[in-house]
This record gives sequence, C-alpha cells and structure tokens, in this order.
Amino acid sequence: MRPVYFIAGGMTKFAKANQHKDFRAMVKEAFDYAMADVPNLTLDMIDGSVASYFSDHFTRQLKAASMVQDYLGLCPKPSRRHEGGGATGGLCFQTAWESVASGRMDICVAFGFETMSRVNTWKGNEFIALASDTNFDYPVGGFYTGYYAMMVRRHMHEFGTTVEQMAMVSVKNHGNALHNPWAQFPMKLTVEDVRNSEMVADPLTRLDICVMSDGAAVCILCSEDALEKYDLCDRPVKVTGIGCGTDTMRLADRPRHGVILLPHESPDDYRHLEYPGVHSFRAGRMAAKQAYEMAGITNPLEELDFVELHDAYTSSEIQTYEDLGLCKYGEGGRFIEEGHSTLTGKVPVNPSGGLLACGHPVGATGLMQAVMALWQLQGTIGKHCGGDATLQIPDARRGLIHSHAGTGTYVTCTILERGF
Amino acid sequence: MRPVYFIAGGMTKFAKANQHKDFRAMVKEAFDYAMADVPNLTLDMIDGSVASYFSDHFTRQLKAASMVQDYLGLCPKPSRRHEGGGATGGLCFQTAWESVASGRMDICVAFGFETMSRVNTWKGNEFIALASDTNFDYPVGGFYTGYYAMMVRRHMHEFGTTVEQMAMVSVKNHGNALHNPWAQFPMKLTVEDVRNSEMVADPLTRLDICVMSDGAAVCILCSEDALEKYDLCDRPVKVTGIGCGTDTMRLADRPRHGVILLPHESPDDYRHLEYPGVHSFRAGRMAAKQAYEMAGITNPLEELDFVELHDAYTSSEIQTYEDLGLCKYGEGGRFIEEGHSTLTGKVPVNPSGGLLACGHPVGATGLMQAVMALWQLQGTIGKHCGGDATLQIPDARRGLIHSHAGTGTYVTCTILERGF
Repeated sequence: MRPVYFIAGGMTKFAKANQHKDFRAMVKEAFDYAMADVPNLTLDMIDGSVASYFSDHFTRQLKAASMVQDYLGLCPKPSRRHEGGGATGGLCFQTAWESVASGRMDICVAFGFETMSRVNTWKGNEFIALASDTNFDYPVGGFYTGYYAMMVRRHMHEFGTTVEQMAMVSVKNHGNALHNPWAQFPMKLTVEDVRNSEMVADPLTRLDICVMSDGAAVCILCSEDALEKYDLCDRPVKVTGIGCGTDTMRLADRPRHGVILLPHESPDDYRHLEYPGVHSFRAGRMAAKQAYEMAGITNPLEELDFVELHDAYTSSEIQTYEDLGLCKYGEGGRFIEEGHSTLTGKVPVNPSGGLLACGHPVGATGLMQAVMALWQLQGTIGKHCGGDATLQIPDARRGLIHSHAGTGTYVTCTILERGF
Repeated sequence: MRPVYFIAGGMTKFAKANQHKDFRAMVKEAFDYAMADVPNLTLDMIDGSVASYFSDHFTRQLKAASMVQDYLGLCPKPSRRHEGGGATGGLCFQTAWESVASGRMDICVAFGFETMSRVNTWKGNEFIALASDTNFDYPVGGFYTGYYAMMVRRHMHEFGTTVEQMAMVSVKNHGNALHNPWAQFPMKLTVEDVRNSEMVADPLTRLDICVMSDGAAVCILCSEDALEKYDLCDRPVKVTGIGCGTDTMRLADRPRHGVILLPHESPDDYRHLEYPGVHSFRAGRMAAKQAYEMAGITNPLEELDFVELHDAYTSSEIQTYEDLGLCKYGEGGRFIEEGHSTLTGKVPVNPSGGLLACGHPVGATGLMQAVMALWQLQGTIGKHCGGDATLQIPDARRGLIHSHAGTGTYVTCTILERGF
C-alpha cells in the first residue's frame, strides 16, 4: 500500500448559532488555518477534495459541498461528498486516505462542516430522529437519547455500571476542554453537577449528552512523493490503520451472539456474555479490529498514546473503551473510575474534550478529532491552543480516532502515527 | 496503480411509482441479479460496499444506505454513502474503484438507489431546486429546466444549434430504449412529437427532459488478485480511466475564459469563443481530460466504441458531445443531425436510451450506465435484455460512462475496457 501522510489541519471554533456565518466561510477559515501550517503548499498543488456534511435537512441546500469547493478555489478539480450519520467525518477522512493510497491523488483535502443552528432545536431533533428506522422506530417516538438510555440500562444491569461513572466521563471531558479554545463547552463540573442537570432520558442527563453545533474542520493528506518533492511538512503524521464497521439500524435487529474479537482477545474472554449485541457496538469492534490488524497493534492499551473517540453520550464513551479493547466488556465503568482515561491515565481519552465539550457539528466532528490528533502527534497542541499546552500528551507517538453514527450503524477507527 | 476490474452488475427496471417497494428490496433485486452473474462469488468474500443516493428529502430516511447494507447481508463490513447530485452514481463507482485500487478492499460492491415517487412531483421538483443556490437562484424561482433552457439558448445563439437537432436526441434515445427492457420510457417518436409535447421552459419540451424515477443498480468491482484467485469472471472489464471535475453552483459565477483542453485539442481550436463557460460544462471537460489522460486516449471519436452519457436534457447530450471532444464546441448539433451518435454511427451514444428514456432515479443512474457499459463490453446485451441484442455494439472494446450533477457542478467520466 502507498504510504499516506496527514500534514495539516484546521478548524473553526465549534459554537452554537454561527448563523451569521455561511458554511462556506466556516470551511474557508479552517482551510486557511491548515494551509498556513504548510507554507510550501499552494492551491494549485492540491489534486482534489472530499467533503463531509450530514444532512440536507440542516443546510436546506443540496450539493452544499460543491459550493464550498468553489469557495476554496478548488474548482474544477475533483470532489464528492461523503455521509454516514455521526461517522460522516471519520468516513470522509478514510476516503481522503483512499484517494491518495490509490494513486489517484497526491494531495487531497478533506473538509467537513455543519450549520445545525440554521434550524431550531425541535426541528433539529426531528431531523436527527429520521436517522433511525422511519418505519419502525421513529413513528413510535423513538429518538436518539432514548436509544442510548436503553443501551446503557442494559450495560448497568449486566455489569453494574453506575450513573456516577458515566458522570465522570462528562467531568473529565468538559474539564479537558478548559484548555481547548476550539471547544464549545469548557466547564469545570462535578459528578453532582452532571447528575443534577435536567434528566433527558433516564439515566442520561443533559450533561451526559453532546449538543448540536456549527463548525468546520479541514485535513490535508498527501503521498510520500508529494511530501518529499515539495518539502511540505517536517512533522508529518502517517495513517497506518483504517477500519470501518456497520450494523443494523434497529437495536432490535442486532445479533445476540458472536462478539467480534480484537487481535489480543480470545473467545474465552466473552463466553459468559448473554447479549453481546445490545450493550456494545458491533460496528465499533469491526472498525477497531480492521484498524489494529492493519497497524499491527496487538495491545491497544499499551500501544496507543491517546484516543479521540465519539462520546456523543457519556455511556457511549464507556461502551467504546470496551469496543476498542482498552478494557474487557463490562469493565468500562471501572476504567473511567480508576482514572485510566484521564490526561495522566494509561491512555488519555478525548484530551480535546470530545463531542461532549467540543460540540458535535456532525460533518465536522470526525475531522476535528483528526486535527486534534495531528497536533498531539506533532507536539504542537500548545501552539494551536493559544499557548496552553496542558492537553499535550508527552511524547505522543500513536493515537486512534473513532467516529460513530446512529446507534453504532457506521463506526470508523483510524490509527495515526508520527512519521518523523 | 493496482488494476481494478468490474465483473458484474444488476439493476431493477426503472419505473415511476415503485412505491410499494422498499428501497432495500429494490437494491437487493439488483444485487441478486449481479451476484447470479458471478456464481463463484459468495457473500463472505465481499469486503465492503459504497452506497449512492441523492437526497434525504426523497427518502425521508436518513442513513438509508446503512439499512441497505444490512438488508444485503453485508453488516458488519465497511460501507459509506456518496453523494453529488445527479453525478452521485458516477462518484460512487469511482470511490469503489479507489477502495480496490488503494488495496483496502479486494471485492467491493457499489449500490445506488432512489425512490423519488415517495414524494409528489411538485415536492420533488422543489427538492431538486434546492440543489441550486438557495440564496441567489432558488428564491427568485430558479429551477433546473430553466437553467438548461438558458444554457441551450446561448448555444443556439452562438452556434446555430436548432430545436430539431435537440429533438433528434430524444428520438434516438427513446428509440434505443425500445430494445432495453430495463427502461422506463421506450418510445417510437418523431421530431414533431418532441416539438409538439408540452413546453416546459422554452425551448425545452417535456420530451426534451428526463423524468423522476424509482430504481436501483449494483456494480461489483474487484482486484486482479481476487479475480484470479477465485476465478470470478471470464469476461472482466477493466477500469482504465477515472476523471472528475467540479464547477461553481451558479451559472453567473462561471469563468468566461479558459477552455480546458483535451489531449487532442490545441488552444487554436477555441480562440474564437466568446463565452466558453456558459454553453458548455467546464467540469465535464475536466473529467474527460483526466479520464483520457489516465486511459491514454488521444482520439476519443476513434478510440471509444460507445458512450453512455448523462442526457438529463437533450441539450446537455449535445453539449456533452463537445465536452467529451467527440466533436468541437459548436458542432454538437450537427453531430446528432449527421447521425454520428446513433447505434450505427461513429460512436453510439446512449445505446441504453440514456436518462431520457431509462428514467433518472438519481443515485442509481450512474451505476445503471456502468452496468449497461459492462454488458456492452462483455458482449452480453442480448442475454441481459430478454434476448434482444439490437443494442449490442459489435465488438465493443472500450466505452465511456459520464455522470453529471446540477448545471455541471460535479461531472465524472470513467473509461471501461475489455479485460479479456
């Protein structure tokens, strides 16, 4: 496989009500930021782009990505849009990788955006609910927080996971974001604050849940040839693992047996599980397995220096610790409680603040994670976070980014490593 | 570059009001048809899929592609959706190529679908109008047939193209479809019939314009390794050229100077053109240029045995003859009048009947073109068209498929060649 490098990234601050800003202007801001980081790269050297936004319903502008292409000055070069619910950004990054790995492009821009505040919250929630099965789940009032509440209820029943453990995820991520100027909701919280915030779907409170947001993010990927030929970047990051999994739309259709095993696991680890399909994400397992196999990772807890994962809910961060094999199924609650995922833990998870604190402008989110991971691996968190290097993982050499849609309908895992 | 082969395809009949059919069932029908053509291929050998549908507005089901993935039995394998207006199918095919060419997958399924009859025609037209600029063009009543009418008016003014020449495209394509059992509107027409049908946007009549449709199409691509290892297909078709171009959303923003030259053209060919950006599609030029360069085509008229192109309007078929370099700018009208694009002409264009006669279920259309092209190159048109081999181009060795969005916002060209 042709090596692919990730050389620059940019984003806007994620925020509610960027209504005054056109999505084009938001992407341009992120693009200019990325370009400024690789001064030897000029517009004419870019071969094309891949775009990421979630739903026509939010933009009420079809083919919105083509307007961004023009605004960035990339016409008449190739482009196309990718979508897969909450995993849209992760899928887009992987397609940019394919564009370069296939030899079709030498330099490819991945851009993502969302302008969710164009619609009111009620309407926005209705649109998001349309990403569940509109024949079976939506008509009876199904909505996303409800699905996640059901899943974590099973997790609590099966493994004794507690609401306090979930709250600890919120405390950690909002706290990390205090040092991330790009985040929407930096907050110093306590477990009590999280539990005392409004109940949305028992046991999930408002502070267990990420919010809609406006924002954009941009990643620039290139081939080894281009990297060397144009002397583009002295701290390139290499994409060493790509994984993606899918699952049924409806929870009720999930298989009840057959855990997908990660490279370091054996069938004996999970013989005792009654319903492995309900409290966990099969697609996440598949994505992790593929990415680990490609990157040669056999002990993720030891071999990953940090993880940026899709914590749309505090519960899904706990579930995802397990899906990624950072701990065994059922041990996710203890994993956060014992502090393993804090900034100074065994494997810092969501140093950026994650979706919970950064906000979740869907099409941009997965690319924002990639940008934060790039800066971690380049050792430039301080430079890009207004001089505050608190979030910098010392000597970070390998990280994982994880993007997730629906109730685990699409999940991506991508492994990034220092290439310098 | 890793060679990529196209080994099997299937589709549903394109039709209005497949309302009784779920989009999943439609794709499954097309998928089963494709799988039946490569009996050595089993579900477990497939590495993943790429999906294609146009707008959430038509399905009113977000992440619809993930439900198809499940229905085909492809969970938990990788998948993602691609979109780019009318070029959605063409973009999806090219991404499937990338997935294999990059080494990520050995066997990849591209599936596309649309269920446009889920909404009424008025609503459907409104949704399609949202694929124009919703700040500038849509609010003043801009709609697609109007934009195409403006473009062809300029073409007529500049080059003397006639409405009768446009009608000849409709007569040809609807006539070809008399031998294509998959087409929605096979019709024996005269130039008078076309001109006497209802005027939609002067000079375009109802029979100058394709219609909304329901349908699905599936393409299966594989690597050389997989092809040989599993003995998948004795008539594989090789993907030898991939091109994609983009342009501004608004016609008013198109550049007025600077024709993109194809490999066989010189600047002298077009020095006389006042407004090369208005009567033609810059993105189409870019797509053709890239595809020709990759496939080593220096004389498309001689080197292509047939073309399946995006004739959403009779006028755009004429414009596209020129963009593909089958003739010079301004000569497209004469090209059809002189019969060069008929079944027995120099380069048969739209032997399938094109969008005009097959219908245009957006996400499926570009893949339908690919399937028809596959069968042409395999020499199996008769087998797949109910025993009627009228449309078979004798000894077809190389063809081009062309997919087109908006007013030329995204355009793809893909070159397919016999690989046996």
